[in-house]
Amino acid sequence: MKKRVLSNVHSDKLYEQVHDYLLERIRRGEWRAHEKLPSIRTLAVEFNVHRLTVFKAYQQLKLNKKVYVKDKSGYYVMPDSMMLIDSQHNPIVSACVHESSLSEIHQVQADYQFSKALLDPNLLPNHYFSEYVKKVFDLYPKVLGTYSTIQGDLELREALSRYFTDQYRFYVSSNELLITSGSLEAIDLIARVLIKPRDAVLLERPTYSPAIDVFRRQGANIIPVEIHPYGYQLDQVEALMKKHKPRLFYLNPTFHNPTGYTVPAEQRKRLVEMAHKYQCLLVEDDPYPDIYFEEKPPLPFFAYDTSGCVIYIRSFSKYIAPGLSIAAVACRPFVMNYVLKAKSLSDSGTPLLNQKIFLHYFFSERLQQHIEKLRIALEIRKSIMEEELSVSGWKWSSPNGGFNLWIKLPESISMERLLEKSIEQSISFVPGSIFDPLKEYNSWIRMSYSYLNEQQLRDGLKQFVQLYRLLSLSE
Amino acid sequence: MKKRVLSNVHSDKLYEQVHDYLLERIRRGEWRAHEKLPSIRTLAVEFNVHRLTVFKAYQQLKLNKKVYVKDKSGYYVMPDSMMLIDSQHNPIVSACVHESSLSEIHQVQADYQFSKALLDPNLLPNHYFSEYVKKVFDLYPKVLGTYSTIQGDLELREALSRYFTDQYRFYVSSNELLITSGSLEAIDLIARVLIKPRDAVLLERPTYSPAIDVFRRQGANIIPVEIHPYGYQLDQVEALMKKHKPRLFYLNPTFHNPTGYTVPAEQRKRLVEMAHKYQCLLVEDDPYPDIYFEEKPPLPFFAYDTSGCVIYIRSFSKYIAPGLSIAAVACRPFVMNYVLKAKSLSDSGTPLLNQKIFLHYFFSERLQQHIEKLRIALEIRKSIMEEELSVSGWKWSSPNGGFNLWIKLPESISMERLLEKSIEQSISFVPGSIFDPLKEYNSWIRMSYSYLNEQQLRDGLKQFVQLYRLLSLSE
Repeated sequence: MKKRVLSNVHSDKLYEQVHDYLLERIRRGEWRAHEKLPSIRTLAVEFNVHRLTVFKAYQQLKLNKKVYVKDKSGYYVMPDSMMLIDSQHNPIVSACVHESSLSEIHQVQADYQFSKALLDPNLLPNHYFSEYVKKVFDLYPKVLGTYSTIQGDLELREALSRYFTDQYRFYVSSNELLITSGSLEAIDLIARVLIKPRDAVLLERPTYSPAIDVFRRQGANIIPVEIHPYGYQLDQVEALMKKHKPRLFYLNPTFHNPTGYTVPAEQRKRLVEMAHKYQCLLVEDDPYPDIYFEEKPPLPFFAYDTSGCVIYIRSFSKYIAPGLSIAAVACRPFVMNYVLKAKSLSDSGTPLLNQKIFLHYFFSERLQQHIEKLRIALEIRKSIMEEELSVSGWKWSSPNGGFNLWIKLPESISMERLLEKSIEQSISFVPGSIFDPLKEYNSWIRMSYSYLNEQQLRDGLKQFVQLYRLLSLSE
Repeated sequence: MKKRVLSNVHSDKLYEQVHDYLLERIRRGEWRAHEKLPSIRTLAVEFNVHRLTVFKAYQQLKLNKKVYVKDKSGYYVMPDSMMLIDSQHNPIVSACVHESSLSEIHQVQADYQFSKALLDPNLLPNHYFSEYVKKVFDLYPKVLGTYSTIQGDLELREALSRYFTDQYRFYVSSNELLITSGSLEAIDLIARVLIKPRDAVLLERPTYSPAIDVFRRQGANIIPVEIHPYGYQLDQVEALMKKHKPRLFYLNPTFHNPTGYTVPAEQRKRLVEMAHKYQCLLVEDDPYPDIYFEEKPPLPFFAYDTSGCVIYIRSFSKYIAPGLSIAAVACRPFVMNYVLKAKSLSDSGTPLLNQKIFLHYFFSERLQQHIEKLRIALEIRKSIMEEELSVSGWKWSSPNGGFNLWIKLPESISMERLLEKSIEQSISFVPGSIFDPLKEYNSWIRMSYSYLNEQQLRDGLKQFVQLYRLLSLSE
């Protein structure tokens, strides 16, 4: 009986059973951090399975950062993947510990923060923002004493519904919109509702690193999809969908972070069809479509979707109101019901005050004019960065919007050393590996031109290029 | 080999295996909603186990709302516990669907909302609140353009650290404080970090219903602890800790919701010792210790804790700023590290604007004076409710603080009918079963005196008592 019960409960894939077994033993602390694990051969004999089965189990453990490979001599226990059996913690914690070091990089105090993909606070209309706050208190004198509904303020959702129709030519009713406190909350809610352990999830490579952590924490089997200046290789994406039957593909197709690439309209259309065919949800993260330089970006995937397979996360914090944290999720009712229930268990709704301030601020004519200026200011900053780096010999694809350059350095230099020396000189940037589920891209870096003013950009970049030269001479 | 792998992965308790097996089959849709499940006898034969084993498995399924019992004829599939095998959802969803109907009750439009345990917005100092907002913009002109740190604004955490020392006589450093967007977020983060499926969790009975849902969604094995006007039966609590080794006990010991009961100081001290002894964390939810009537409540559990086994959630939204959503979590560094990591994956920190407004508003002398008036206003409202209900013959224990009366009605009436008829007359209240993990307390209700003004309280309660009389005569 025992066998029958268990084989039903579990996946019938042998390598997953081996994977689970090894993971459980690691968590129980049978092997210590950095201890060598049994060889593939040994385990194959012990379990009476093919060596390839053990190999696949180890590969999955490696992808999920539970083990690492050293000098081709075998597999070793990754320190944080262990669980003290008597502690009050669970597998989530060990996943949390693998949080990327992006937040650590952001804690670096530097005069030249090229690591910050944030808007320079001086570019925000601070001087008239408080007027909108005052207006909100005049209009809703009891706003402080009022909870929002879980789904978000109706007045705001209606305004957004009109805005999406006007600007992006798609219709989404106020009932198909949820207000969240920023895009990360939205990603987290979606992951919690849709992903269970071992579900396949497609992620761009490179990608927004907190998303890697969120999906990994849900136990997702992460499958990378490379993004190029021209978009994706769609035949590869199709092969991955066919093979892995992913629950969802998390993507950031417009002024992609970190690369700045934009997926062209034609690919958007085809990918939506493909997603429908393979029943894979597309989770489209769209943090700053307004920040374009030459021409408007293509319409969002959501605008091409007729089957309800796109979940659209539109955030505003990054370019107009970091201190407010407002994002909207658009999706069709079937998915909305679940996301809404997850939201109802994670807070009591995004604070009403923030929603009302955002409503009056964002839809004001003055802010819309301000965004126009913002585009120009950021395009100038981008040009300055490109000009300063033109002498470096580094390579990048010039983005048509967003905050970042994704730069390929010559491979001869040690990234670790470059980062260390830069920080010594009060310069910060983000190493490419942070954005990669596979932790590669070792000769790539992300440099943001959004946070520093023109003079700081020039000074900092001159210093950085010079530092690089010195280091490469000494290697 | 298969057997070995699996028996290691799994719990070795036979009834849990049977439970998992049945749950998996329910989720796969083998039985439809409301379909009768195989009898205990049949399954015992099929699995070759003792009938008691199957019985225990069914009991656990029942407790977790996966099955229900009808007319003693057997076990039936609870509708929402099914999972469509080809849908994009996971067990979390089915747990979400079991969300209590508290939010539904709150959606009822009624003239007499005794269901709302919220402060009457007219009791808030709306008229001078906007001044504090203005002050924030004068002091921090770029507050809008600035993200908070994940842990929360340092200035606010330092102010809270001083406040806790002054008011509650415990020392907690700014590093041991985390700012969250309300208490539900805090409960959710704690549950996500500390609870894995089948972990035992003690919950008061009755309790704050979203907490039931949050812990249930984590797959916790929920063990109820009854709360009485005099507190807990500590010997019973000890027996439960000994037997089940719970990870944590979620409690709301001060003006408890829904009952209004307060756990006396002596019990607090003993329970902290007990928690330390059995390595059970105490998660203390403290939403309105400032709203006391006669005398100040005892110090929080956290003040008695020397071993780091208490996590203290102090929220402010309920009584001074629902529109801001600010709460603080105090805990010792070991636990804080984990909670902080969970927070970093669920949002980018509570909005800075809200934290700064709260800081200047809450610690102002004017607000502290206002809280004094609030206590008086609420005590008057409580007295009015008690006066109006004194003719009813119903029973309750008069609370020394908070927003609610927990009322025992005679058992002769149908709660469903009472609720239906009340809503018809534009009166809302919350049936007791919503607060109970076991969904009992069928003759209890929660009536809040915090939301309606004095005249509304009198009119609504007269009407409600009369309605009750008519119904009980007709039954």
